[in-house]
Amino acid sequence: MHKEAAIKTKTLTDIGEFGFIKILERENRVFFNKVIKGIGDDCAVIEKDKEDVFLISTELFVEDIHFLKQKIPPYELGIKVVNASLSDIAAMGGRPLYLFTSISLPSDTELDYLDTLYKGIKDACLKYKVDIIGGDTSSSVHRTVINITVIGEMKREEVVYRSGARPEDLIYVTGYLGDSSIGLMLLKDEISMPEELRKYFIKAHTLPEPDINIGRLVASHKYASAMIDISDGLVADLNHICESSKVGAEIFLDKIPVSKQLISIKEKLPSPIYEYALYGGEDYKLIIVIRSEKKCEFESLVKEKGLVCYLIGKITEEKGIKAVSDKESTKLKIRGYVHF
Amino acid sequence: MHKEAAIKTKTLTDIGEFGFIKILERENRVFFNKVIKGIGDDCAVIEKDKEDVFLISTELFVEDIHFLKQKIPPYELGIKVVNASLSDIAAMGGRPLYLFTSISLPSDTELDYLDTLYKGIKDACLKYKVDIIGGDTSSSVHRTVINITVIGEMKREEVVYRSGARPEDLIYVTGYLGDSSIGLMLLKDEISMPEELRKYFIKAHTLPEPDINIGRLVASHKYASAMIDISDGLVADLNHICESSKVGAEIFLDKIPVSKQLISIKEKLPSPIYEYALYGGEDYKLIIVIRSEKKCEFESLVKEKGLVCYLIGKITEEKGIKAVSDKESTKLKIRGYVHF
Repeated sequence: MHKEAAIKTKTLTDIGEFGFIKILERENRVFFNKVIKGIGDDCAVIEKDKEDVFLISTELFVEDIHFLKQKIPPYELGIKVVNASLSDIAAMGGRPLYLFTSISLPSDTELDYLDTLYKGIKDACLKYKVDIIGGDTSSSVHRTVINITVIGEMKREEVVYRSGARPEDLIYVTGYLGDSSIGLMLLKDEISMPEELRKYFIKAHTLPEPDINIGRLVASHKYASAMIDISDGLVADLNHICESSKVGAEIFLDKIPVSKQLISIKEKLPSPIYEYALYGGEDYKLIIVIRSEKKCEFESLVKEKGLVCYLIGKITEEKGIKAVSDKESTKLKIRGYVHF
Repeated sequence: MHKEAAIKTKTLTDIGEFGFIKILERENRVFFNKVIKGIGDDCAVIEKDKEDVFLISTELFVEDIHFLKQKIPPYELGIKVVNASLSDIAAMGGRPLYLFTSISLPSDTELDYLDTLYKGIKDACLKYKVDIIGGDTSSSVHRTVINITVIGEMKREEVVYRSGARPEDLIYVTGYLGDSSIGLMLLKDEISMPEELRKYFIKAHTLPEPDINIGRLVASHKYASAMIDISDGLVADLNHICESSKVGAEIFLDKIPVSKQLISIKEKLPSPIYEYALYGGEDYKLIIVIRSEKKCEFESLVKEKGLVCYLIGKITEEKGIKAVSDKESTKLKIRGYVHF
């Protein structure tokens, strides 16, 4: 055996998706044009006029990485790619306006499939009054790939970034966590359960709703010091806030909201349920960080508007993310849905 | 044999990419938000402020459909996907500002490949003072897919659409046509030629430049009644102008600009050279349509600025596109780079 054969070339797997995004962020900090925020948050932010900004996000959905074509019907896939994209606008407090779809499909795809996929895309846009104003279509050799670019709008002074969290700030999430990851396990036939429960979890995975209303509310009242949506998992996304804000966090394990359905199947699951709530991706709830003095005012307004929010932890000066329970405090491993 | 087996299900190949885009255009004509132009031109157009608009275009590049990964080095691929995207902004007369890259690569891709691809993307952006302000990365199971979204800016009253051509208007192109298609044939080893010629044609294919300067000039002087870039081929793209403007066109065959390099290899080519000039894609020159009374003024200004433009035909009331030579006038088949 030659010596050279033992030298392993570095691949994407070695640095991971976030490793690559960090390189991009570092390399693109000097701008020719007016840029309010470039790479490194849920959306880029550019100036619209004196008062308002446009938020722009672009997201890629790849067959067998982000979705299983044989397992998710095209209508649901269409809704999901839109809702996941709108969630990036919600995560900064914006109002989504425009959407662009790029779709690459095998050339032998039946027209019915494309029609139904597109109907899903369109219905999701209709629901949130978003206009489809462009896109690209192409054949592919094997796999289906969808790219969604979405543009939102909001007042410049109301934009909520990942970077504003300070020690002692409170951490909220806007709904049940972990259900989507159980839905994915069901689609992959990794577990089984009665039909009604099965439907519930698969719906959580295939039809998540973007939390636009609560994002708008929080932004327009300037409650939040930081915000993000949960696409990669609670720990992974909270870690994005912590890294951007140069802080750490404590999560109160027994405060994480989980559905009664998730509790009801805990005996059947290979791991404890908090594992799914901490690390399961694609629930598309928001993590909202607020100053502690705004607690009462914030909670009252959320209740008044018929929305929900769960206090699950607080920001700490000490870096890293800890899970805190009655018995102990454990440093959590930062991992989520890492693609590469 | 059962009767059902004889019924062929309709696929994307049957309606083609443009068939699908037409469906999208028809289905997305009513807007919730302020939209100046939706689907159906090189870019969507949205209001920025009272005077200015943003142009947005999104384009998908799929391995083995739009590029051959083994044949185009990653640096050139990076430059090409950016330049092809900026060409859409040039085609409406805009100034490109911001760019978003979505890249999906097999997880065993060497980091060097991604770094070099990204260096190409970055250098192309630097050249045109475009800021990379967002994107997405993901692994893929097999093929590499790149989606580029680009945002440009211009004065609202200066935007040039496809739909303004009128009978008797003159048709110009901004450079040699057909060279890119010869480059592709070389990459696919379909023909061979001396190294210097080989380099010339491959460069035409892999490193086309967007015609931003002439696009800006034409728009800011309000010379053009219609404009488009040539990505699908002269006939196919001129046909987009004709369909949008509800007119036809005549192309003077012997006026189509072709390089001396293309002329020098005509004996080696399987088809007459005008075939490559009429139907070859990805030259990324502009088709500019102007009112005949502006001919002299337009041609003088282009010359004064050190730019080039070739008069190749005129718009007609009669639909369809005809090739006119000394001897005859032939109706051309509308075909180009149709993907599905």
